[in-house]
Amino acid sequence: MNQDTPPVIALLTDMGLSDWYVGAMKAVILNICPTARIVDICHKLHSQDVEDAAFMLSVCYNYFPEGSIFLCVVDPGVGSPRHAIIARTEKYSFVAPDNGLLSFVLNQAQHLEVRSIDNTDYWLENASQTFHGRDIFAPAAAHLANGVPLESFGKKMEKTERLPGIDKVSIHENSLTGQILYIDTYGNLLTNVTPDMVPKPEKPEDFRLKFKDHIILGLAPHFAAVPTNHPLMYWGSSGYLEIAINRASAQRKWDAHIGEWFELEWPCSE
Amino acid sequence: MNQDTPPVIALLTDMGLSDWYVGAMKAVILNICPTARIVDICHKLHSQDVEDAAFMLSVCYNYFPEGSIFLCVVDPGVGSPRHAIIARTEKYSFVAPDNGLLSFVLNQAQHLEVRSIDNTDYWLENASQTFHGRDIFAPAAAHLANGVPLESFGKKMEKTERLPGIDKVSIHENSLTGQILYIDTYGNLLTNVTPDMVPKPEKPEDFRLKFKDHIILGLAPHFAAVPTNHPLMYWGSSGYLEIAINRASAQRKWDAHIGEWFELEWPCSE
Amino acid sequence: MNQDTPPVIALLTDMGLSDWYVGAMKAVILNICPTARIVDICHKLHSQDVEDAAFMLSVCYNYFPEGSIFLCVVDPGVGSPRHAIIARTEKYSFVAPDNGLLSFVLNQAQHLEVRSIDNTDYWLENASQTFHGRDIFAPAAAHLANGVPLESFGKKMEKTERLPGIDKVSIHENSLTGQILYIDTYGNLLTNVTPDMVPKPEKPEDFRLKFKDHIILGLAPHFAAVPTNHPLMYWGSSGYLEIAINRASAQRKWDAHIGEWFELEWPCSE
Repeated sequence: MNQDTPPVIALLTDMGLSDWYVGAMKAVILNICPTARIVDICHKLHSQDVEDAAFMLSVCYNYFPEGSIFLCVVDPGVGSPRHAIIARTEKYSFVAPDNGLLSFVLNQAQHLEVRSIDNTDYWLENASQTFHGRDIFAPAAAHLANGVPLESFGKKMEKTERLPGIDKVSIHENSLTGQILYIDTYGNLLTNVTPDMVPKPEKPEDFRLKFKDHIILGLAPHFAAVPTNHPLMYWGSSGYLEIAINRASAQRKWDAHIGEWFELEWPCSE
Repeated sequence: MNQDTPPVIALLTDMGLSDWYVGAMKAVILNICPTARIVDICHKLHSQDVEDAAFMLSVCYNYFPEGSIFLCVVDPGVGSPRHAIIARTEKYSFVAPDNGLLSFVLNQAQHLEVRSIDNTDYWLENASQTFHGRDIFAPAAAHLANGVPLESFGKKMEKTERLPGIDKVSIHENSLTGQILYIDTYGNLLTNVTPDMVPKPEKPEDFRLKFKDHIILGLAPHFAAVPTNHPLMYWGSSGYLEIAINRASAQRKWDAHIGEWFELEWPCSE
Repeated sequence: MNQDTPPVIALLTDMGLSDWYVGAMKAVILNICPTARIVDICHKLHSQDVEDAAFMLSVCYNYFPEGSIFLCVVDPGVGSPRHAIIARTEKYSFVAPDNGLLSFVLNQAQHLEVRSIDNTDYWLENASQTFHGRDIFAPAAAHLANGVPLESFGKKMEKTERLPGIDKVSIHENSLTGQILYIDTYGNLLTNVTPDMVPKPEKPEDFRLKFKDHIILGLAPHFAAVPTNHPLMYWGSSGYLEIAINRASAQRKWDAHIGEWFELEWPCSE
């Protein structure tokens, strides 16, 4: 970590913005590491939805500066024997409950060291049993930012919880069946289809997607390539195939939901 | 205040996040004190709900670093003769309208000096009559952060507005009647019952709470101590008794509202 | 720009707070300019509403410190031939798509230089075609903050897109017909009427406004000048005439909408 630049601590929680919970975590961080640069990723995750949190983290962490510390608290099992952990990869540190939240990030890591946060020296005094975000995770992130070595926090863990994975795509000879993975604030539908699952399109206009009763013809480069209110599919900015309607919400217009299936066909190569 | 570390200014308002109002306040702060570290506590308080703001401030201010300045603007009486004040306690400064918002914080303070913000040198030029948050309170917080002495802002005030207090609990020999004080984003119900109101539980499993038609048996240490979808009561992270349903919203499941009553019983000591 | 104080980058987008999009933009900024002070103006603009964004920017940018960089991304035409631009005025820099978002700000500017962001050296590598906020606009703002000279980004533009303007007020001898321009989170109605459109009121109590079936008599100095639940009109903190109900929402009580008309009358001068 650069000595001259204070460390980034990036927050991802399901705590919402209507209570003081996120503010209390930031207070604790600044009390321990006054120079931390705190960045919000998102706090409006669906309450206690670990899978959504894991996905969201996986599509944005790579844009953060090397040395960033991710403080991720979606923690329905607070108080249970699940561990509080710090995972360190080549470039980043992640502080989170060991409930699968870090799955996709850790699946991608080459070098990885995971420690549990056992050492109560790095907890807040009189830690509560229901708000570990404030009392255990936030202090750990701040002490990390202060340069406390990873091994001081607790014992090494050889195994961590991992979610089953999101690639439930069935790939056939010239088609596949994919699923809606995430719906964003614009009503665009992110799917679980990545470019490596389909042939390099020589004729992107021959791709054909069927979702419910709707047919989309052709892979578009971007929204402006189709008229207003027309549907399109395109390789989205997070690396997944996306389905959208130009200047409208595909979610609302088509009553789309996470988990729904669609079919994608491409021309036979000859 | 540490000379090397820029001061924290923590914001608590009812301005929401859909307009530019909070952004304009931050702009004013950074114009006057470029090194201020601005932290949001919450901006989604119920519109003009001074009581909620006072409660929220009281449960989180203590986690902030010594020297922090709290800029609290829930101000339905803007333009009226209510004073704009700065209150300084042992560790913190609070900038707010004198409408009771600081009640619980000031009730807890040992040493206390309150000044009104009369000196227009520390107001924005051409201060409006409807947005004192931007034109009077934010500049005052920023000038405080710059080290302007408290006495420069205005005359000493001996009395400040205080809300009636939240402890309306009726305590009987082995029971009490309490009230829902606050409902958080998870749908957990914070009550006005604190540990000092009930006997130190030798048998926490014998505590019994009745809310509407629902009975909760036993004080739980945390959520994971009861099965999914089961109700529980526990000492919450803010110091109050809380009522919740594990991995669900007690608010929605039980149609709970602030101000509703419940009964808590504990075993007779012998 | 002061060398000692890191530059402010102020964000205005329609990306909402439910996804990781804003967080990813901040990550990109801090990766390029680690010392930037990032401030949120608003992210909850109506999806793809360029006119709202242009208005919001125009009423708050002036409060920011000299040298601030505004990163404004409401970009329904992403991927189309619309340019990505940097506009520099006397005091500020604005980074935005050239779709009218900067209209009101640029209309007010004395000295103005506009460049397109053509130089891909200042884009993120492998820029996507659908998230220029993260891949083109955020990097440009951060490089500006690092001191990269304006001319390095691309060629000069002589013309930029401008919205038609908001002053559709019809002014008569002692009356005018105005329109609701914006409705804020309190339900207050901001209109398109400015003080220069009406005579300096000698008797502000003789002003009379008719909106739907509701009559408001007299220009009030502030909310507290009328009883609770009474309507009022006043010169608002953003420089426009506003219509409100003291301690209630005029929007909800009167079912008010943007674009609706009202009539304002004042006494004949003799």
